[in-house]
Amino acid sequence: MANYVSKKTFESAVFKFDSGAELPLIKFGYETYGELNKRRDNAILISHYLSGTSHAAGLYSANDSEPGYWQAIIGPGKAIDTDRFFVVATDSLCCFAANDTRVVTTGPKSIAPSTGKPYGLRFPVITIGDQVEAQKRLADSLGVEKWFAVAGPSMGAMQSCEWAARYPERVERVIAAILPGLSCEAYLIARLSQWCAPIRLDPKFKGGDYYEDEEPIEGLTQSILFMTLDAVHFDGMQRLFQRRWADRSKSPGVNLKNRFSIERALDGSSYLRAPLCDANSLLYLTRSAQLYNIEDRLDRLRARFLLIPASSDLVMPPGMTKKMELLLKERGIDVSTFTIEGDGGHFDGLTAIGKASEAIRSFLN
Amino acid sequence: MANYVSKKTFESAVFKFDSGAELPLIKFGYETYGELNKRRDNAILISHYLSGTSHAAGLYSANDSEPGYWQAIIGPGKAIDTDRFFVVATDSLCCFAANDTRVVTTGPKSIAPSTGKPYGLRFPVITIGDQVEAQKRLADSLGVEKWFAVAGPSMGAMQSCEWAARYPERVERVIAAILPGLSCEAYLIARLSQWCAPIRLDPKFKGGDYYEDEEPIEGLTQSILFMTLDAVHFDGMQRLFQRRWADRSKSPGVNLKNRFSIERALDGSSYLRAPLCDANSLLYLTRSAQLYNIEDRLDRLRARFLLIPASSDLVMPPGMTKKMELLLKERGIDVSTFTIEGDGGHFDGLTAIGKASEAIRSFLN
Repeated sequence: MANYVSKKTFESAVFKFDSGAELPLIKFGYETYGELNKRRDNAILISHYLSGTSHAAGLYSANDSEPGYWQAIIGPGKAIDTDRFFVVATDSLCCFAANDTRVVTTGPKSIAPSTGKPYGLRFPVITIGDQVEAQKRLADSLGVEKWFAVAGPSMGAMQSCEWAARYPERVERVIAAILPGLSCEAYLIARLSQWCAPIRLDPKFKGGDYYEDEEPIEGLTQSILFMTLDAVHFDGMQRLFQRRWADRSKSPGVNLKNRFSIERALDGSSYLRAPLCDANSLLYLTRSAQLYNIEDRLDRLRARFLLIPASSDLVMPPGMTKKMELLLKERGIDVSTFTIEGDGGHFDGLTAIGKASEAIRSFLN
Repeated sequence: MANYVSKKTFESAVFKFDSGAELPLIKFGYETYGELNKRRDNAILISHYLSGTSHAAGLYSANDSEPGYWQAIIGPGKAIDTDRFFVVATDSLCCFAANDTRVVTTGPKSIAPSTGKPYGLRFPVITIGDQVEAQKRLADSLGVEKWFAVAGPSMGAMQSCEWAARYPERVERVIAAILPGLSCEAYLIARLSQWCAPIRLDPKFKGGDYYEDEEPIEGLTQSILFMTLDAVHFDGMQRLFQRRWADRSKSPGVNLKNRFSIERALDGSSYLRAPLCDANSLLYLTRSAQLYNIEDRLDRLRARFLLIPASSDLVMPPGMTKKMELLLKERGIDVSTFTIEGDGGHFDGLTAIGKASEAIRSFLN
């Protein structure tokens, strides 16, 4: 892309959550790639994964070295061809990367008008459906009555499926990558809860009221590490790290403080990311994923589905989408599956999405 | 068994660890089932899993409702037939269940003679090989020159394999259930490290010097929860818990404090177990498992191997033992595999071990 991407902000007044709670105002960021055509029928919505942002493709500037996470499939001539499609990618509400200056989000870090202080854990519980409602307001403002497709990985795939269940008349196609099927089942509910445990144990967390003080960085670092660990695979990790020691002169066999290379690498990368992330927001987004469930609304679905599991995904393994595929087919829904083969685990839905290019291209034709 | 099981204690002076460190004395508990024959050639050694104890079979008293963990295969007429075999089951050093009054172990909770206080994290790093050295001293004292078989699940399987690599002339057969193959690879190293993260985050942990004060129960509870979570499987958990709420009147959709049934169950069972367990000991046993490696000593192996993976094991999946089986076969080692089919995950190596009865029986004949 020769053009650089810029973040836009969408605001909307009086937002009612699925829980019944209301906020006077929400705002969130979004990026667009390509142009909306005159018939307004070429728009594709991209929703991000739990720890992601709206930055799905492109670069922000000439100095920017890291393109958006689905760069492999979004752009001119790519599977989601921006010469043909108008692509809209949104920041979620309660976006985990709330401290990233390019992210715009309403969440627990936002100032509550009634108190002049951050909401903290007084922010309402948020659902995948609430994310969809927010996106629907943006669609209305853009004049997009029907999405050519809604797409995303992981939490973004949940949002895509929720779109199809909630607004069947507004969604033609769903591309759902690395999805836990039709609902979040017990084991995944527990795994998501595990991600939050370190934050809750950190004494600096203070029940979510840490904004005026130090952030619970130690707990947050471990939470990010846990998410990473669930998102990788045995084989990929072994290929990269083997059984090496973190420091060649410090054997883990003689001192408990000496560590393995894999431990140091995970700690280090998580610690680097932590300052961009907001601990409370993780509690909200994991809860929204736990609440994900379209199983009770299968008879509302009208869209065509492309499911893209990753063969080595340990947290939302291909068996989950296989079960979903069978259930949808039983109901006469047009659904197909393309499996990303690899040893990268759940992450393959991001880093190896290019392998699904042809499947996506033909699904959109 | 009509006879009740009693715990015996073995003591041995001056113990040198693989790290080079030395202790003036170690002691650990053990149980025996059946009788040693005159030729002393009918002895089978059982080593326990990481969070277990030497209580592999039988009941302690008429009031005891919970038999040992491998009760399904150890006893008169069972696969490991105590009418034929003399079975010895030991408590590990640094036994995690150090606060269980029936466990005898030397570890970080033991009093250091030089200071009159618990070792805490001044205890030496321990290896799987150190556990084997301790067991070898017991074998010597019992007059067992050669084990008819060494057996165990998970960490106990690592010890069994280490026996075969360290003392090939003293081991005829190895029964290794739910084993991570020939070494602990990078991903499992990270998972084991994850188990310890909550303990390290708990402010009551105090670098391991908590014995004279409150124990880090909150962190310890989460650590136990993490071990449990790694040891189960998606399908088994879904079958048991579904997406139910912990409290029918408290929707997780309206308040972050409201939870799902699976979350409450895991928290509850972990919290109940925590008082029996010692936080420091977990740090030692996980490190010993991280250090597990017999890959560099394959040419020493002489024993016959029976590998028993569990089909739904997510932490030490069957692929790991499959790789091991191929490598051993290449070297002409007699190895066979029996896979426990089920949806119980890693735990199936304990709770569903009965399914391997015939495979074990014929391996011992």
